[in-house]
Amino acid sequence: MPAVSLSDIIEFVRGRYDGPRDVMIDGVLPLSEATERHISFLSNPKYAPQIETTNAIAILVSNDLPGDSPRWIRVADPYYAMATTVARFFASRPQPRGISPHASIAQSAKLGSNVAIGAFVSIGENVVIGDNVVIYPNVTIEDGAEIGEKTILYPNVSIYYGCKIGRRCILHSGVVIGSDGYGFATDANGYHHKIPQVGIVRIEDEVELGAGTTVDRAALGETVIGEGTKVDNLVQIGHNVRIGKRCLLVAQVGIAGSTTLGDHVQVGGQSGFAGHLKIGDRARIYSKSAVFDDVPEGVWVRGIPAVNQRDYVRQQRILQQRDKNK
Amino acid sequence: MPAVSLSDIIEFVRGRYDGPRDVMIDGVLPLSEATERHISFLSNPKYAPQIETTNAIAILVSNDLPGDSPRWIRVADPYYAMATTVARFFASRPQPRGISPHASIAQSAKLGSNVAIGAFVSIGENVVIGDNVVIYPNVTIEDGAEIGEKTILYPNVSIYYGCKIGRRCILHSGVVIGSDGYGFATDANGYHHKIPQVGIVRIEDEVELGAGTTVDRAALGETVIGEGTKVDNLVQIGHNVRIGKRCLLVAQVGIAGSTTLGDHVQVGGQSGFAGHLKIGDRARIYSKSAVFDDVPEGVWVRGIPAVNQRDYVRQQRILQQRDKNK
Amino acid sequence: MPAVSLSDIIEFVRGRYDGPRDVMIDGVLPLSEATERHISFLSNPKYAPQIETTNAIAILVSNDLPGDSPRWIRVADPYYAMATTVARFFASRPQPRGISPHASIAQSAKLGSNVAIGAFVSIGENVVIGDNVVIYPNVTIEDGAEIGEKTILYPNVSIYYGCKIGRRCILHSGVVIGSDGYGFATDANGYHHKIPQVGIVRIEDEVELGAGTTVDRAALGETVIGEGTKVDNLVQIGHNVRIGKRCLLVAQVGIAGSTTLGDHVQVGGQSGFAGHLKIGDRARIYSKSAVFDDVPEGVWVRGIPAVNQRDYVRQQRILQQRDKNK
Repeated sequence: MPAVSLSDIIEFVRGRYDGPRDVMIDGVLPLSEATERHISFLSNPKYAPQIETTNAIAILVSNDLPGDSPRWIRVADPYYAMATTVARFFASRPQPRGISPHASIAQSAKLGSNVAIGAFVSIGENVVIGDNVVIYPNVTIEDGAEIGEKTILYPNVSIYYGCKIGRRCILHSGVVIGSDGYGFATDANGYHHKIPQVGIVRIEDEVELGAGTTVDRAALGETVIGEGTKVDNLVQIGHNVRIGKRCLLVAQVGIAGSTTLGDHVQVGGQSGFAGHLKIGDRARIYSKSAVFDDVPEGVWVRGIPAVNQRDYVRQQRILQQRDKNK
Repeated sequence: MPAVSLSDIIEFVRGRYDGPRDVMIDGVLPLSEATERHISFLSNPKYAPQIETTNAIAILVSNDLPGDSPRWIRVADPYYAMATTVARFFASRPQPRGISPHASIAQSAKLGSNVAIGAFVSIGENVVIGDNVVIYPNVTIEDGAEIGEKTILYPNVSIYYGCKIGRRCILHSGVVIGSDGYGFATDANGYHHKIPQVGIVRIEDEVELGAGTTVDRAALGETVIGEGTKVDNLVQIGHNVRIGKRCLLVAQVGIAGSTTLGDHVQVGGQSGFAGHLKIGDRARIYSKSAVFDDVPEGVWVRGIPAVNQRDYVRQQRILQQRDKNK
Repeated sequence: MPAVSLSDIIEFVRGRYDGPRDVMIDGVLPLSEATERHISFLSNPKYAPQIETTNAIAILVSNDLPGDSPRWIRVADPYYAMATTVARFFASRPQPRGISPHASIAQSAKLGSNVAIGAFVSIGENVVIGDNVVIYPNVTIEDGAEIGEKTILYPNVSIYYGCKIGRRCILHSGVVIGSDGYGFATDANGYHHKIPQVGIVRIEDEVELGAGTTVDRAALGETVIGEGTKVDNLVQIGHNVRIGKRCLLVAQVGIAGSTTLGDHVQVGGQSGFAGHLKIGDRARIYSKSAVFDDVPEGVWVRGIPAVNQRDYVRQQRILQQRDKNK
């Protein structure tokens, strides 16, 4: 990454700054890791003591921060200023270019323009790949799947037949889309007979799926992840689940079959949902919870089993009060 | 998938039906997604209101369902009728055919008849592949492993050396069989020395393993998954675990080393087991539980730590009663 | 594996043994699985009854074990004696040799001496591979990554650009190193904008990572796993997490962004940590816990939310006493 002048950065973030601007910057780093070739930022007040000790040449801080220092670059939102500075000056990433001679691409597959395909990528019959898609090595895309324009598939992603991925999505390594849902009919002798899973997964635009996340195909119809939803690593999404738009699902969450999440739902890490539930828009589920009932719109729940925040606090207070009585 | 006449479907499920039969059907879909080119079904009473509003041309319902409609196809078990209809008419799936010129197969490997091997599959020395096995792209099978007839390995599966997979098994994408168990001896200075993991994994017939599930090889001897057991996604099975026949393990379950599960055990999602436990036949573990003690045959347990159902209900009642007193 | 004389094993472990030594041994197996061609061992007292019923020709037991038998080989530490015997005589493992003609290796990559690279391995520009590294099939290493000497990468591992793996590390199948951290800035309309993740992952020497474990790259700077730390399967390590030296993390643990673990920390399976926490040296977290606060050096915690052991025991006692009152 080429160095950038501090002057250019300050102009870009429209910051107030009284120190020397005629220095070159190699990047942005956390306060504890920055050297005099880096700028840093203060967003989480937990790290405030480090603005004295950091080696950073300059620090993005809030307009409201009490005190003063020639190193401070005052901006409205230091976190936003950091993120946009990184994106503008320091975020280039190496990618595959062109189509590797080591890829296996079915003749019936349709590739858009400017597609990049890495080594050992397997693309099945009648697959449709949009313009500017980037596919890293060792990805498998089975027959009939569709990948929207500008989507990125990192190494070792698996996409089963017929599944549809939207535009500008990011699927990290190890993601599995369209594996069979967990559906069995058990007979009187306890043998489990497989229910065919003949639906698909449909992922809308601008969805990001973290490493190792798995999304099962519908038994019938579709498993859906809505536009702009962001999913962390090692999350399990069961068959016929429908997730709304712009939800956040943190790592290791599990959602059992046919449960529906509305829009803007937020789910903390390691939480789980039973099947066939309806979770309303803007509901929030605290981390490490287990949701066994529907959650109405806008309600926050927590615990195992999950209850509303007020009941949760009461239960905790009781356990702690009784401790004191001992 | 070619369309099928409704008449053929009704005859196949032996249904009672008074509507017009001379129409073509494209498939089976849930009530909320079906069009007039689909049939649907009512099994979970939660969805009963949708039998009025669905666009399905015909609906599989129970012989016992009160009321009447010319759209209803009455059968003994609508779920079973749906599953068999899908399997009979609508479940064909594209698969690799023949042996890809882009596979790498050791000369000493033995392949059965009618084996299908996709691109970029690596098969090591002395591997034995049974008749009619299907291996999707980017699978790795290390030296000496054995795959039983009619087993299906989806993309990006990894099978370590010497492990044995039975007949008619299904391993979904990202499954790892035979990785080293978590075994270390810690010395007085806190250094962890690796205990060699020289056993294998043996998976019996008709086992299905969900996407991203990992099964560690035994330290010594075998890690075993019994015949007909079905495992969901992202489950972790430790070294020397022995799982009986026809168990059900839902997503994100974890089983620590040397724990034994009997036959017909059912484990809800996100539950965990400590090591060296004995779980009896037909035991049931509710989802999100943590099992730290043996569970006798036929007993149901729940909670963290898991207790029997009666004690669990008591604990919950106490917490809620005290809430009301406040 | 060739057979070994019992005499050689007894000499190697410096055991006291009065039975016949002139027999050949095929390996070491658990008491319940051993035949007269195997030796076994007694370490966990839970299995003591099996030393009567085992078919093993000889059994490693502690110098202190009461009783006597001509089959017993008395040693100071039977578990250690078992592990070293296996490592010395029975632990050879097949590995790729040389460089597969089916690998894709960028011309700018630098390979050390005696490197083994399996089929369908993709190695990007400017990658540096140390001496004696072993890379199994279907691994992808993106541009600029570095792999230290004697490290082993099992099938289907993915290493993103610029990440650094130390010496003598073991990464099991499906491990993902350097996927993007979960970082988004949400605007007033609820759209989540990606924060560029431009840091790296740095893994120090002698780290082992279990199958399917994911380690996210830092937003800025480094995500670090310290020397000699051992991580089990399906663990999620968030961006900018720093894990100290010689920690143990059991399966399915999750650590949210920027949390720091000291040295010698032990974390039980399925536990989780909120972000931005500080966990002191030698802290211990019991399995299935949720840590929402800092944990001081040497403290043991448990529960959801995690509290110290004394408070945890109190809470449990209260729930159980009240049960009896009913």
